[in-house]
Amino acid sequence: MKAVFHVVEMEKWSLSLINVRNLLRDAKEDVEIVVVANAEAVDGYTKDFELAHVMTKQNAKGVVFEACANALKAHEIKEDEILDFVEVIPNSMIELIKKQEEGFAYIRP
Amino acid sequence: MKAVFHVVEMEKWSLSLINVRNLLRDAKEDVEIVVVANAEAVDGYTKDFELAHVMTKQNAKGVVFEACANALKAHEIKEDEILDFVEVIPNSMIELIKKQEEGFAYIRP
Amino acid sequence: MKAVFHVVEMEKWSLSLINVRNLLRDAKEDVEIVVVANAEAVDGYTKDFELAHVMTKQNAKGVVFEACANALKAHEIKEDEILDFVEVIPNSMIELIKKQEEGFAYIRP
Repeated sequence: MKAVFHVVEMEKWSLSLINVRNLLRDAKEDVEIVVVANAEAVDGYTKDFELAHVMTKQNAKGVVFEACANALKAHEIKEDEILDFVEVIPNSMIELIKKQEEGFAYIRP
Repeated sequence: MKAVFHVVEMEKWSLSLINVRNLLRDAKEDVEIVVVANAEAVDGYTKDFELAHVMTKQNAKGVVFEACANALKAHEIKEDEILDFVEVIPNSMIELIKKQEEGFAYIRP
Repeated sequence: MKAVFHVVEMEKWSLSLINVRNLLRDAKEDVEIVVVANAEAVDGYTKDFELAHVMTKQNAKGVVFEACANALKAHEIKEDEILDFVEVIPNSMIELIKKQEEGFAYIRP
């Protein structure tokens, strides 16, 4: 199973991470999970975000967290302000298209 | 045609059911519709929800309504409190992935 | 690359058009973009909408903008009130299914 989660609003981080946690726990087969955040949701990747410890734990289990470079720029967040494991991608739309082309299911919490 | 509707917020039930109604009415070919509710939206499956009669009618036309067991538990809703025809699924994320693997289009009202 | 953007809320027009702009700018290969608006978001297609000039410019670059006829009717918007280049489609759900069947990635800003 392969899924790409699209997180757009800050208020959706909590639900998104619960969704990911439950998916990791309940999946009977291997599951590849990529979380793509853009727009204001990239603020959730800053080191002082209250759910950073949850992301850190999920990343250790193989979940990939990605931040849209365009959104980081628009929200004036520098790369050294975000969690170390977060991968900065040039364009989140291209990533969402590519992932779906590769057979990832799209989930918008 | 096959579509899976993902309902996350209570306030999206009205629009979601309008979308389903219009799809049933306008489709020129057979259409398989599955509605997956998770998070707070599972509250919409309780028997006293104001749109329960709409769901009941749509279910009679073949629409499948599914509730995420994890969300029911989180919102302290017991299975005997929800509409009889609603199918409880163990994990809505897995269901959304599986449905997309089976060729269902994903729609997030 | 092919992507269908699903715009549902008026407040999502700004982000949606930024997403489209960035995609057009950053894509290294041809990209086919269809924007499907339904529900209240069809109000964004009226000629006096503040972002009409952005849509006009993007349409000139090949982006297709579509309005759900059911939503126009529900919101009492006549076809002569909307931007000339907007294509009225009978049912936005059917369009979203067809586009995904044709290999378009689904993006819900």
